[in-house]
Amino acid sequence: MSGRTLQAAVRGVYVVPEGQVASQAVPRLSLSFAGAEGDRHTGLTRPSGSREPWYPRGTEMRNERQLSILSEEEMAEVATGLGIAALPAEWIGGNLLLAGIAHLTQLPPRSILMFPSGAAVRIDGDNGPCRISGRSIAAQTGQPEHEFAFVKAAENRRGLVGWVEREGTIAPGDSVKIRVWDQHAFAG
Amino acid sequence: MSGRTLQAAVRGVYVVPEGQVASQAVPRLSLSFAGAEGDRHTGLTRPSGSREPWYPRGTEMRNERQLSILSEEEMAEVATGLGIAALPAEWIGGNLLLAGIAHLTQLPPRSILMFPSGAAVRIDGDNGPCRISGRSIAAQTGQPEHEFAFVKAAENRRGLVGWVEREGTIAPGDSVKIRVWDQHAFAG
Repeated sequence: MSGRTLQAAVRGVYVVPEGQVASQAVPRLSLSFAGAEGDRHTGLTRPSGSREPWYPRGTEMRNERQLSILSEEEMAEVATGLGIAALPAEWIGGNLLLAGIAHLTQLPPRSILMFPSGAAVRIDGDNGPCRISGRSIAAQTGQPEHEFAFVKAAENRRGLVGWVEREGTIAPGDSVKIRVWDQHAFAG
Repeated sequence: MSGRTLQAAVRGVYVVPEGQVASQAVPRLSLSFAGAEGDRHTGLTRPSGSREPWYPRGTEMRNERQLSILSEEEMAEVATGLGIAALPAEWIGGNLLLAGIAHLTQLPPRSILMFPSGAAVRIDGDNGPCRISGRSIAAQTGQPEHEFAFVKAAENRRGLVGWVEREGTIAPGDSVKIRVWDQHAFAG
């Protein structure tokens, strides 16, 4: 692995309680190989959903979507697109809010986020904006049109999903070292 | 996920016994979320090694390298590069030999191999050729120079590594449906 190294900072950490879409700020994330302690997406496996139409819904599959990772810079752009002052990470169920990487959503799969505790998160890839998050925003703003507007405004800015490569904790203020995977084009 | 779909065929399936580098042909691979039954690389986690110099050697990390996936076409090219008639998948510890994809090694991360049993393997990405495999070839051919020659000849032709996304079995003769992940360039 020969890629570049980038630096970022952790602005906030959050977990999504059972049965909810929005996340809540916590003092720290405790990461096991199953994901973040106390988050409803935690599990070594997960049931398939609408993002995997090629499997019968509810099929048990390995969980590569343990964590939702957002960029402060991109969230500000999405807020502008929606005509609101700010888009808190909690509204769209973020687990980890980073600052310092302008186009975080484009970070290549296989890249690694490394934290001072030793915790490491492997990037599966970019997250696609969905109407469920849009509805969560609309419920906060009281503007129903935000359900669809979010899907458009957040295209290529919805952050990343990833899984725990190495256990540990993450807290606001932590520095993040990012190993950028050096990807190749597919010739077909 | 909007990428293309490709078709391939399974030519052979293999497991690597404990303590060995070479694999042995088996009638079928039984895949659990930990990997292939009876293979020494099987595990939900693995100890880090020389491929992860950023971790202390032996660090427990999630195992994204459960399976080694090879292309019949690429193996023929590597054999030509080494000046030998054929390079059996077993010599370099392959688990799965596919035919029908010319540049399998370049398949993007996040692509999925889907098998008739329902088994699915998620591609972590390309595998880097190493001297350990080169030594295994040299032991078979009796030509010590093959240890280094393999690393050069197999560049961008060493196949893929991946992990079990959905449990099931794979057998020679199976068709493989490949969902190619549609990747983006990283603007930085």
